[in-house]
Amino acid sequence: MARILITSGPTREYLDPVRYLTNASSGRMGQALAEVAVKAGHEVVIVSGPVEIDYPEQAQVVSVVSTEEMLEACREVFPRCDGLIGVAAPCDYRPRKTARHKLSKTGRGLELHLVETPDIVATLGASRSQGQWMVAFALETEDPRIRAVQKLERKRCDLIVLNGPAAIHAATTAVEVLDRRGTVLAALSGGKREVAEGIFRIIEERLLGR
Amino acid sequence: MARILITSGPTREYLDPVRYLTNASSGRMGQALAEVAVKAGHEVVIVSGPVEIDYPEQAQVVSVVSTEEMLEACREVFPRCDGLIGVAAPCDYRPRKTARHKLSKTGRGLELHLVETPDIVATLGASRSQGQWMVAFALETEDPRIRAVQKLERKRCDLIVLNGPAAIHAATTAVEVLDRRGTVLAALSGGKREVAEGIFRIIEERLLGR
Repeated sequence: MARILITSGPTREYLDPVRYLTNASSGRMGQALAEVAVKAGHEVVIVSGPVEIDYPEQAQVVSVVSTEEMLEACREVFPRCDGLIGVAAPCDYRPRKTARHKLSKTGRGLELHLVETPDIVATLGASRSQGQWMVAFALETEDPRIRAVQKLERKRCDLIVLNGPAAIHAATTAVEVLDRRGTVLAALSGGKREVAEGIFRIIEERLLGR
Repeated sequence: MARILITSGPTREYLDPVRYLTNASSGRMGQALAEVAVKAGHEVVIVSGPVEIDYPEQAQVVSVVSTEEMLEACREVFPRCDGLIGVAAPCDYRPRKTARHKLSKTGRGLELHLVETPDIVATLGASRSQGQWMVAFALETEDPRIRAVQKLERKRCDLIVLNGPAAIHAATTAVEVLDRRGTVLAALSGGKREVAEGIFRIIEERLLGR
């Protein structure tokens, strides 16, 4: 049986002690994939941003807030895993600095300098060992397939799961699973648990078996 | 019996179809206040941003996403109410524009121009009628009491409830209730339901009875 790292949920990047940048990722797809992997007898470690859902009891959960923290936790865990399913939606911009006190309104607005956060999957991909496999998720609103395959290449993944903004925080989803050549291996839609089963079947066939 | 408007939860201000500015307000304090008010036999209308909790069935709930939408809903509802409890934590900055497509990382970062969103309680306060009462919440990390009383004045409220960042998304809280003269009427701490009962007792004594 395999040891699988699943990243899940959003991350937050704070401007001050109260306000932050994020997205509406609920962690439900990560939850569904963890349930399916646990049920299939695999050992699952989940590195998750702040979510309101419960992960399966059999999984080990590492809770993080920011993208940097998520990367740090993954770098710790991934070397001892067989593969990664990167379904988290890490916030990819952060304020250059975080104010120590809550910013007060001045009537004038605010210029916010955002810097890019590290790409977690790409960072793990750059140092993956020969035997490790990686599955990334991509959410694109423009030229989705082309961008997804570019991401797969850049992040050195084996498969990429492409979804749209409608999937965020929804009970249902519609995804395409693409390989390195851009071939659509499957188009899956329905409840997140059902779609997770379809994705995991492809992972078992193509990656766990090899 | 009174008709009470409760604003609750956070709001979101989107940069693009996926990313937004927000805060971790869970809506739990709004939920607790609504429960207490409903139990006391009052009619409750809740205007709420995106939350994961359930409001009491007897309350009417208007769901909104952005601060502008929250204000619009409140302007519609408040003229037919006796009072307002403004416990929402509306996002008070929004990007000057929202990108139609998800912003792609360029390696360079991003300059984000934020403008202030309208102050919901202050806007309602400016046009409140003689008989209406208003209770605001303030979350301050610096000079909390002074700033809270300044807010109370500016927003033309009758009472202000002061809390700290530790209250956000927590089960428990610690608050002070201040009147227009800056007098601390009560310091309450404990579970949010218990604190909500204490706050509502003061509202009943000072505002509902008058």
